[in-house]
Amino acid sequence: MLTNPDLRNKAMTLRPEGLIKGTKGGKREVAYPIESIEELSMIDQVLRDESVKFLSETIDSGEPFYLIHSFSKIHNDNYPAPKYKGKSPAAMPVRDAMIEVDDITGELMALLKEKGVLENTLVIFTSDNGANEDTWPDSGYHPWRGGKGTTWEGGVRVPGVVYWKGMIEPGQINNGLMDLTDIYMTSLRLGGVMDKLPDNLYFDGIDQTAFLLAENGKSRRQVVYMWNRTDFCALRWLDYKIHFKVFNTVIPRRNIDASVLQDIGTAPWVFNLNMDPKEMASTGHQYFEWGVPQATKFMKAHIGTMKKYPNTDIGLGI
Amino acid sequence: MLTNPDLRNKAMTLRPEGLIKGTKGGKREVAYPIESIEELSMIDQVLRDESVKFLSETIDSGEPFYLIHSFSKIHNDNYPAPKYKGKSPAAMPVRDAMIEVDDITGELMALLKEKGVLENTLVIFTSDNGANEDTWPDSGYHPWRGGKGTTWEGGVRVPGVVYWKGMIEPGQINNGLMDLTDIYMTSLRLGGVMDKLPDNLYFDGIDQTAFLLAENGKSRRQVVYMWNRTDFCALRWLDYKIHFKVFNTVIPRRNIDASVLQDIGTAPWVFNLNMDPKEMASTGHQYFEWGVPQATKFMKAHIGTMKKYPNTDIGLGI
Amino acid sequence: MLTNPDLRNKAMTLRPEGLIKGTKGGKREVAYPIESIEELSMIDQVLRDESVKFLSETIDSGEPFYLIHSFSKIHNDNYPAPKYKGKSPAAMPVRDAMIEVDDITGELMALLKEKGVLENTLVIFTSDNGANEDTWPDSGYHPWRGGKGTTWEGGVRVPGVVYWKGMIEPGQINNGLMDLTDIYMTSLRLGGVMDKLPDNLYFDGIDQTAFLLAENGKSRRQVVYMWNRTDFCALRWLDYKIHFKVFNTVIPRRNIDASVLQDIGTAPWVFNLNMDPKEMASTGHQYFEWGVPQATKFMKAHIGTMKKYPNTDIGLGI
Amino acid sequence: MLTNPDLRNKAMTLRPEGLIKGTKGGKREVAYPIESIEELSMIDQVLRDESVKFLSETIDSGEPFYLIHSFSKIHNDNYPAPKYKGKSPAAMPVRDAMIEVDDITGELMALLKEKGVLENTLVIFTSDNGANEDTWPDSGYHPWRGGKGTTWEGGVRVPGVVYWKGMIEPGQINNGLMDLTDIYMTSLRLGGVMDKLPDNLYFDGIDQTAFLLAENGKSRRQVVYMWNRTDFCALRWLDYKIHFKVFNTVIPRRNIDASVLQDIGTAPWVFNLNMDPKEMASTGHQYFEWGVPQATKFMKAHIGTMKKYPNTDIGLGI
Amino acid sequence: MLTNPDLRNKAMTLRPEGLIKGTKGGKREVAYPIESIEELSMIDQVLRDESVKFLSETIDSGEPFYLIHSFSKIHNDNYPAPKYKGKSPAAMPVRDAMIEVDDITGELMALLKEKGVLENTLVIFTSDNGANEDTWPDSGYHPWRGGKGTTWEGGVRVPGVVYWKGMIEPGQINNGLMDLTDIYMTSLRLGGVMDKLPDNLYFDGIDQTAFLLAENGKSRRQVVYMWNRTDFCALRWLDYKIHFKVFNTVIPRRNIDASVLQDIGTAPWVFNLNMDPKEMASTGHQYFEWGVPQATKFMKAHIGTMKKYPNTDIGLGI
Amino acid sequence: MLTNPDLRNKAMTLRPEGLIKGTKGGKREVAYPIESIEELSMIDQVLRDESVKFLSETIDSGEPFYLIHSFSKIHNDNYPAPKYKGKSPAAMPVRDAMIEVDDITGELMALLKEKGVLENTLVIFTSDNGANEDTWPDSGYHPWRGGKGTTWEGGVRVPGVVYWKGMIEPGQINNGLMDLTDIYMTSLRLGGVMDKLPDNLYFDGIDQTAFLLAENGKSRRQVVYMWNRTDFCALRWLDYKIHFKVFNTVIPRRNIDASVLQDIGTAPWVFNLNMDPKEMASTGHQYFEWGVPQATKFMKAHIGTMKKYPNTDIGLGI
Repeated sequence: MLTNPDLRNKAMTLRPEGLIKGTKGGKREVAYPIESIEELSMIDQVLRDESVKFLSETIDSGEPFYLIHSFSKIHNDNYPAPKYKGKSPAAMPVRDAMIEVDDITGELMALLKEKGVLENTLVIFTSDNGANEDTWPDSGYHPWRGGKGTTWEGGVRVPGVVYWKGMIEPGQINNGLMDLTDIYMTSLRLGGVMDKLPDNLYFDGIDQTAFLLAENGKSRRQVVYMWNRTDFCALRWLDYKIHFKVFNTVIPRRNIDASVLQDIGTAPWVFNLNMDPKEMASTGHQYFEWGVPQATKFMKAHIGTMKKYPNTDIGLGI
Repeated sequence: MLTNPDLRNKAMTLRPEGLIKGTKGGKREVAYPIESIEELSMIDQVLRDESVKFLSETIDSGEPFYLIHSFSKIHNDNYPAPKYKGKSPAAMPVRDAMIEVDDITGELMALLKEKGVLENTLVIFTSDNGANEDTWPDSGYHPWRGGKGTTWEGGVRVPGVVYWKGMIEPGQINNGLMDLTDIYMTSLRLGGVMDKLPDNLYFDGIDQTAFLLAENGKSRRQVVYMWNRTDFCALRWLDYKIHFKVFNTVIPRRNIDASVLQDIGTAPWVFNLNMDPKEMASTGHQYFEWGVPQATKFMKAHIGTMKKYPNTDIGLGI
Repeated sequence: MLTNPDLRNKAMTLRPEGLIKGTKGGKREVAYPIESIEELSMIDQVLRDESVKFLSETIDSGEPFYLIHSFSKIHNDNYPAPKYKGKSPAAMPVRDAMIEVDDITGELMALLKEKGVLENTLVIFTSDNGANEDTWPDSGYHPWRGGKGTTWEGGVRVPGVVYWKGMIEPGQINNGLMDLTDIYMTSLRLGGVMDKLPDNLYFDGIDQTAFLLAENGKSRRQVVYMWNRTDFCALRWLDYKIHFKVFNTVIPRRNIDASVLQDIGTAPWVFNLNMDPKEMASTGHQYFEWGVPQATKFMKAHIGTMKKYPNTDIGLGI
Repeated sequence: MLTNPDLRNKAMTLRPEGLIKGTKGGKREVAYPIESIEELSMIDQVLRDESVKFLSETIDSGEPFYLIHSFSKIHNDNYPAPKYKGKSPAAMPVRDAMIEVDDITGELMALLKEKGVLENTLVIFTSDNGANEDTWPDSGYHPWRGGKGTTWEGGVRVPGVVYWKGMIEPGQINNGLMDLTDIYMTSLRLGGVMDKLPDNLYFDGIDQTAFLLAENGKSRRQVVYMWNRTDFCALRWLDYKIHFKVFNTVIPRRNIDASVLQDIGTAPWVFNLNMDPKEMASTGHQYFEWGVPQATKFMKAHIGTMKKYPNTDIGLGI
Repeated sequence: MLTNPDLRNKAMTLRPEGLIKGTKGGKREVAYPIESIEELSMIDQVLRDESVKFLSETIDSGEPFYLIHSFSKIHNDNYPAPKYKGKSPAAMPVRDAMIEVDDITGELMALLKEKGVLENTLVIFTSDNGANEDTWPDSGYHPWRGGKGTTWEGGVRVPGVVYWKGMIEPGQINNGLMDLTDIYMTSLRLGGVMDKLPDNLYFDGIDQTAFLLAENGKSRRQVVYMWNRTDFCALRWLDYKIHFKVFNTVIPRRNIDASVLQDIGTAPWVFNLNMDPKEMASTGHQYFEWGVPQATKFMKAHIGTMKKYPNTDIGLGI
Repeated sequence: MLTNPDLRNKAMTLRPEGLIKGTKGGKREVAYPIESIEELSMIDQVLRDESVKFLSETIDSGEPFYLIHSFSKIHNDNYPAPKYKGKSPAAMPVRDAMIEVDDITGELMALLKEKGVLENTLVIFTSDNGANEDTWPDSGYHPWRGGKGTTWEGGVRVPGVVYWKGMIEPGQINNGLMDLTDIYMTSLRLGGVMDKLPDNLYFDGIDQTAFLLAENGKSRRQVVYMWNRTDFCALRWLDYKIHFKVFNTVIPRRNIDASVLQDIGTAPWVFNLNMDPKEMASTGHQYFEWGVPQATKFMKAHIGTMKKYPNTDIGLGI
């Protein structure tokens, strides 16, 4: 027999410590240890409490604040907090978790309202990657190709909701391009500290304040660049998505767990996302031969910034 | 909605300038601007006129000449000149374009004949890559695997017709290997300037004068090497094709637009083109284990020349 | 026609010389030339005779000995020695060859017994790679995924039989991990020369003497690392197999002849070999998110040894 | 050469006659002959004129009316009427055709309003099959699996808009099941002629009057049955889709042109459309073993009606 | 939204009743109702108790007995009885269930021994189909192609253990063919009631008494026939497996849930199970052209018995 | 172990008898027994001798004659007669066999010439199916899709050479459709016995005498119908091939041994053989919607003849 209980038990003892609390260069402590599924299921409740505490204290103090509230759910496996179990119509963990996330969002918004700061707080709700469809039925879902772990639309296209009472007209839908890095620059601008950016660094983000706030604001972003670790894979420009490396999913619905990154031969693959949002039929040289050189220029300029301002190795890569 | 007319119009303004005329280091002008499909359809007529003018003037002047006449057709999309529309039995653009190319070839040959230089002019008709099958029904066609943009036979095997009145016996068929680079060296030899080649450069071509002209001439070329950009992919030796990297076409008939370049694991893939010209069943180690070391030696020697005489970056690569 | 007899004959003259005999830095001679299938079929008989001669002389001389007896069979193509043709129930070459190998093994063991050295000889019977399934019906066979030339279990999992009269209790089955490199270190220990290893080299092997000899011995090996040429591809740890690069077999049963080595995107592929020995369903982040960081640590440490003690180029690579 | 102009011309003379006008058992005439792409492009304009004429005359006459207005667009190939060419943001035929269809719908609605019959006219806008994705970029588009010509959701799920001024509260969204056959029965009920249905025929439709008109109306339809010609393929029940035969699309995006109908082995394939609307991961026996017997009962009862009331052969089948 | 709680709850109420107890033509009662996972997990304990009761009473009464003890486990989903949870080294449900089945088998055997009937009881332990690999990691596992729901070896090849104290020499391994139907005929023979078989019925089984009991007994079965519902699919003869219809598994490891039954074109597919037990490379006409006619004869004779003695419809088919 | 020598030997005794000689209703004898590969290799030499004897005797007697000379080669496995071994440039069995077939054809033609009957003998050289590519390198080869055992062009398109000294102008190439059944009707016409055909039978063949003999003869055949056993699969009409059932080859190059016959869903698959002779891209409804109804009419008329004049069961079917 391959396994013996000793080996298995050994594997089982490899656990994350739990929620870590710390400051840059400062001390680091396990704020909430996680040693069981039960504790794991409460993680977003704990995080909510932390944010409530931080917001309450900071707002009361009159200080400006900048909060990134990251949910643990809806990743996989999903363990909704006990009071959310079976609360979704489908009564499935991922859907129950969605309701939990929705509730917490509402609680945080209610707090902002109660504290009277909605008129001077910009709220952005978004995700850092597309849904992981690998683990159905405990996974998100979307109509796109690919999923988390790829640079197909299923991995990089995420919803974004922006709210600012009195500043942004509710109900608008806008298809301008926006990148997560733009949040950083826009925040700096709104915080009035744009001039404090160091000169010797390169910032990918674009200040999108006008896009978000102006009536009929237009995105200042022309191109979105998509990377997988150290590989530049694709870019979005106008209606077009141009792939320079592609992911092939070997088993249906197993993107992050069973897709391979592949070099393209001679020509990039081009998709017209307006006509073909599922990226099924490359338009090829037939429809876009004049635009590929333009896209290639963008790519080269972008990679040029990487060469001029190389990434700092902060230990994330292999 | 994703698209707005502004974006689309912007993309549409990205056009090629048209036919460029210039000399090395000299001036560069747009000799024939192209701003419409109608102008595009006339491109080979314009090019024919240019060649006719060049040939007439040069021959009349008594100067020797060296002309490379490149057709725009039959690339994709094909827009036959108006008078060729519907002229092929199939009445399809690619076939109409073939007739246009055929006519122009005949016109140029007739000019050579009329000018009385057929006896001292070597004419070679060939292509720089296999047909692009991606865009059926507006594409070439062939019985091989792969197509333009791959190093399968469909991408690299092209017909070659050689004509010299009085010097080459018409009607011969010869299966000796010949590479496009051989045309360069053979031309130098026939032009009597072989001794003017610089010493500090490496030339891949082989002088095939004897192969083309001698009775029962034998090709001096033993191996053909096949690259994709900076990747050495395959070589042809005797009846064998040995692949060191391969192209996998993800969607049928979408070679250049949907194929990926893949590393081979431990062993090269070997095909016997005599028994298997469609490269369907690799012979593997079973039939060729003694020859692979020999092929590997060729590959190493070839790559060695690249290391000793590195390519000059003339801006084509990524 | 593509082929002419001259070319074919030329290819056919590329043959191995035969069995080479030599010593490091000493002379090198063709001990047994091979120029026909008939001579090829006798190769294991010749090798057996060599080993019998070596063993007899060395044992009689009272010297200690270390013999690696490598069979030519059961590689492909298999040409059993004449007296073994049709001797297997299936009467197929690969099976006849198996009987020949079995007989020779028995003959060598009988010699050790006859010479009275079984009590002080450690005998290990194993293989350096999994069966090549490409060439059915002339191939080995196994229940695993992949085959020779891949790092799936079909390429790297091999049987191992260890025998030492009076020292190892017969009939034991043990699933501890053992790597071929461990044989080297274990042999050094048993030979009493462990202290003569040079300091400036790195040895991957582990001394498994206790594992093999002690009652209920436990393997000291925690991880097995799997490479393809210069690519680190996978590791085995506990019940888990973690792939960092994978092989995709393009045509069923054509591993070494038609598989490609592929980069994985963002996350390694994890298989639980206890539950899924055929490596069919990756467990992914769902079951193993805590273990992957551990596996990545092993990988980094392992690759670190390669950087510190780089491989010597002995001419095997490309 | 395969083709000659005679053969081609012969094929080209096989044309549809054009729009046919007739009454059951009455005369049949070509109301609008179609012999060119130009005439074809006007077909929906002609049909609109016919409907306008019919509606105007009938409403003026005070007679009740029942009109099925079928658009020719957006089928393939799409040839928008001249005034719609380039009118969509994407300026592609299929999108221009959508605008033409949208305009005509608006014109017919405006006519109903002008004639003052909106309060007593039920308007249903829907489609008889999902979009044909075979012919991109001249095709519809949807997020589902399969397309026209299959019984995957892409072939059978269509939008349905129901309008009745003063009778149906605008803006409602309802996910109750409704089948095209239900329109027939509901129309009969609303027309007050339900009691005139012959006794010896079987009607698949369900009277959905209450569903459409009642506040919070609930669909009376429990199951939707899906056929391909004479093959019963699938049914929808609650959240579940149960396939008894399936379509496999051999080439991506080539449903009607390159999919095959396949028998399922032992067990039906079950999808939970709520969790998996793209029908990617069958839930199998794991999640639904208790429901499959129920679905099978529905299927048997349904097929029983076919046996008791066999289809009349009206010449549509093979 | 598609789902509402009402619909979901409705689906959830569709449950099996539980264990049914009854006699042919006699009364039918729910002996053990199942309304929860907890009750489901105890099902094999309940069945064991039933068998223990039946065996004890019958043996004590001196009556002969014939018991078919069917396990609920290891089907899917597996819910081991509470005391078996985590008891397997892998601590996975399917493995825990295996241990539960093993224990119960041991308990029943111990009872036979305790009651002193081992010497006159024939015990057969086997399965009615191969493992269902669809639901990994909660599934069985095997090295064959296909799985439950197909007629590849993975669906039809099962282990069989036969035990009779004093009558069958323990430890024998025999590869003679045996079909489940043979158990019926062999039981009749051993029960001495062979002569009571009705004349007007056809029995597929073969009396294998001699095969099981005689020293070096040889199977009297020459051919095994494999059906899928009403489709004759394959037969086994000597070393050969001849497929007349095949299953193609559309998604890896999804046999019963995602395989299709396909007609073969002109020629059956032939596999040599001795050389190729995984049914990977059909031997085709190349190796077996003389045997296929023989196999076809077997098939025709077998199907002839179906025509002469048609199956009684007992309500299992569609 | 699965196999034992008894079973294997039993399988090996199942052999064909050899060449059978007989007349309809008359006696039947084994004219040339075949019990070894050596005897098998001589089979075409024996058949040649038979034809030579028949031709010589019949011509000398002054009788008219009709000879169908069927080659055993180049089927698989190919065993060229001893004197042809290694005689082809590739020195492979299938190529050596081609040379043997070529020689025999030449010998029979020489005999006709020697006997002075070339002027009144029509000679047709053709094949009854496309090459079997399954068994490379011992197989034929062609550029088409599919192979023997399918109704793709690879299975049904064969060369045909027609010769009649003085009656047919040599060197002509003609692409008119001709079916093997036309040979029968044409022979009857040329034999002057057309009026002796029975009235109660249906003949698929067409008298193509004028096509073969007239200057610029045109084929009278408009459609070719393609069947697989009892399934009507496809038809050829003008440049078009319309498939009603298709073959999908599961493993590359394994047509007859690993292809499945599949039902098409709603619409036939249409290929334009002029533009796409490899049948790679179905033109679908986009290019041919007007022609499919015409093709369907041909199909129905053709199947109608099968219903009116059902096939006689001569024991070939399953």
